[in-house]
Amino acid sequence: MPFDLSTLETPAAIVDLDRVEANLHRMAGYSREHGLDWRPHTKTHKTPMLGRMQMEAGAVGLTVATVREGETMADVCDDILLAYPPLGSKKLERVSALAERVRLTVALDSERALEGVARTGRSAGSQIGILIEVDVGMRRVGVESPQEAVRLAAAARDAEGVEYRGILFYPGHIRGRVESQSEEIAVVSERLGQLLQALGDVDLHPEVVSGGSTPTVWRSHEFAGITEVRPGTNIFNDRTTVVVGACDWSECAYSVLATVVSTAVGGQAVVDAGSKALAREELRGEGGGYGALLDRPEVVVRGVSEEHGILDLSETTWRPEVGDRVRIVPNHVCVSVNLQEYLWTVRGDQPESVLEVAARGRVTVA
Amino acid sequence: MPFDLSTLETPAAIVDLDRVEANLHRMAGYSREHGLDWRPHTKTHKTPMLGRMQMEAGAVGLTVATVREGETMADVCDDILLAYPPLGSKKLERVSALAERVRLTVALDSERALEGVARTGRSAGSQIGILIEVDVGMRRVGVESPQEAVRLAAAARDAEGVEYRGILFYPGHIRGRVESQSEEIAVVSERLGQLLQALGDVDLHPEVVSGGSTPTVWRSHEFAGITEVRPGTNIFNDRTTVVVGACDWSECAYSVLATVVSTAVGGQAVVDAGSKALAREELRGEGGGYGALLDRPEVVVRGVSEEHGILDLSETTWRPEVGDRVRIVPNHVCVSVNLQEYLWTVRGDQPESVLEVAARGRVTVA
Repeated sequence: MPFDLSTLETPAAIVDLDRVEANLHRMAGYSREHGLDWRPHTKTHKTPMLGRMQMEAGAVGLTVATVREGETMADVCDDILLAYPPLGSKKLERVSALAERVRLTVALDSERALEGVARTGRSAGSQIGILIEVDVGMRRVGVESPQEAVRLAAAARDAEGVEYRGILFYPGHIRGRVESQSEEIAVVSERLGQLLQALGDVDLHPEVVSGGSTPTVWRSHEFAGITEVRPGTNIFNDRTTVVVGACDWSECAYSVLATVVSTAVGGQAVVDAGSKALAREELRGEGGGYGALLDRPEVVVRGVSEEHGILDLSETTWRPEVGDRVRIVPNHVCVSVNLQEYLWTVRGDQPESVLEVAARGRVTVA
Repeated sequence: MPFDLSTLETPAAIVDLDRVEANLHRMAGYSREHGLDWRPHTKTHKTPMLGRMQMEAGAVGLTVATVREGETMADVCDDILLAYPPLGSKKLERVSALAERVRLTVALDSERALEGVARTGRSAGSQIGILIEVDVGMRRVGVESPQEAVRLAAAARDAEGVEYRGILFYPGHIRGRVESQSEEIAVVSERLGQLLQALGDVDLHPEVVSGGSTPTVWRSHEFAGITEVRPGTNIFNDRTTVVVGACDWSECAYSVLATVVSTAVGGQAVVDAGSKALAREELRGEGGGYGALLDRPEVVVRGVSEEHGILDLSETTWRPEVGDRVRIVPNHVCVSVNLQEYLWTVRGDQPESVLEVAARGRVTVA
C-alpha cells in the first residue's frame, strides 16, 4: 500500500480509478454506437497514465491544448491533435520535434498560424495535419463564415509541409441542461451544414469534423457531419457536469481531500482547500458556490480565498470538528487538476498509486 | 543575457525588479515611519530570492500560509510566521522539522490546533510561538469574542512546547477604496481595543498584534495596538490594488506576457493567457474582466477560458494582429503566480534572470 488515505496530507487530489474506468467505458461505448472517433482532451488530467488508459479504452488518439501536453502525451500515444494554434519561433521548434515523434494535427484559424506550421512541417520533413477551426456560436475563436473557412482550407491544401484534414468546432456556448439543448444543437448543425456544403462545392470536403464538449457529449451525434469528439472533463466529471445533467454525482471520479481547520466563526466550517486547490470558478445558480462535498452534496463551499474554503452548514445537521476530513468535488475539474502536483489514486477506499500531473506548466528551464 | 524577451515562449510571467525594489522600499519606509514590524506574506511570490530581497529591505521575518512555503523560505530567513493552523500528523512532523531550523510562530484559533502544535514543540524540544487568530469582521476564521481569545491565549500560555506571543487579525472584509476605509477601520479598532483590554485584565497582554492587508496597508497604523503588518500582494501589486487606490498602475511589477493567437471573431483579440495563467478572479465593477494590458490599461481581458483570454477592443483604436505580444496585469497576482513554474525577471526592457516559483505545491513525493 503506497499511501494511507487516513493520514495523507491535505489538500490532496483523489482520483477514483473505478469511476474513471466506468466513465471511459461509457464514453467508448457511446462513440462506438454512433460511429464517432473518440479523441479525448487531456488538458483535464495532464497525466500520461490516464492518457494511456484512454487509448486502451478505445480512443483513436489524444487532444492537447499546449505543446507541453503534447510532448508528455507523446509517450503514450502516436496520434495527437494540438487544438491550439502554435505561434512564435520557440514554440514552433517544439512543434517540429513533436511532429517527428507522432502523427500531428494542428487546429488554427489564421493565415499567420498556418504559415508558421507549414514552415515547421517543411523543416521537420513531415506533413502536419491541419484542421480549420470554425466558430459555431461561442464567439471565442474560429473563422466566422463559410467563405473564410474555404479560403483557409484552400490555403492549407496548397501549402507545402501541411496536409488539410478537415474542420474543428467547439460548441462551448451550449451550457444548459442536456434535455434543453435541441434548439441550439439544431442552429449549430445548420451552420455546419452550410459550411460542409461550401467546402464540398470546391472539393475541400473535410475528412475530419471534430467537435463536441462535455455538456453536449451524449448528443454529439446530432451535430451535422461530425466524425470525431474531444470531451475532456468527462474522464472525471465535476459539479458543473452534474448540474447540466451530463453525469450523475456517483460518476464524479475526482475530489480534493481537505481538513477542517477552523470552526471558530459560527454557522460554517473552514477547510484547507481554497482557490489554490479547487480554483475559483463560481457556479451561478443551482446551489452556487465553488464545490460540494462528495459524501454530502448538500454541503456547498460557499466561499474561497487562497487557502480557505468555507463550508455552508445551513442545509445540514452535520457539525464537523477541527481535524475532520472531507472530500470536495470542484465545479470545474480541469482547473483544479492544474493546481495539483500529484493525483492520489484509489479504488473505493483502497489507495492505489501516486501519479504526477506531468503535463502542467509550459517550458522546461535547464 | 539569459533570455530574450522578444522570443520568450508565452504565456510567461514577467517581474520587473526595478518596480519590486521600489515597492519594497516604499513599504519598508512606511513601516519604519510608524514603528511597525514588517513581516511580508510570501504566499504572493513563493520565491526564495524575493523573500531574501524582502529581508534585505528591512523585513523582521517572513509570513507563510503553507508548510512548503515555510520550508522554502527557511533557506533565506530564520524567523517565520505560519499564519495557518497545521493539522494532521504528517504536517506536524514537517512543522517540527521547521521549528528546529527557524524561530517559528504559528497562528491558530482552536484548542485542537493548539494541542497539536504544543505536542510538536515538545517533541522538537523547541518553544513554538503562538498567535491567537481573532476575527475582526471578515467572518472567515478567528475567534469571535474577547472571552474566547482570553481562554485560548491562557491555554497557550499554560501549555508546554509553545509560547504565547500575541494575536493576529486580517481585515480582509475592508475592500473599498483607501480614502473610504475610515469607518471600517474605526470599527475594527474598537473590537481590537476591547480585546486588548480583556487580555490585559488577565495579564495576557500581547507582545505581538499582527494585522493588515494590502488594501488597508498604508493605513495599518490606524488599527489600535497593531505592532506588525503582513502585506503580501504589495511586492508586485495588481489590478485590484490599483482599483482600491493602494498603488498606481506604474507600481505594478508583475505581468503575464501573452501572444495574440486569434482575431477571427470580430471586435476582439484572443491571447494565450487564460484561467491557467491569469486565474479566474473577476473584478466586479471598475471595468470588470480578468486583467488589463500593462501598456494599454483601457484594454481589458473580458473573458477567460483555460487557455484563452479575450481582449475587449471596444475602448481602443489599437487593432492587434495574430502573433503580436502583450503584457497583462492580472486582477489578483497571488493566484496568477501560483500558476507559474518560473518568473522571468527584467529591469525595464532588460532581461535579468529566471526564478523558480519554488514554494508552489504541498508535499514532495520521492
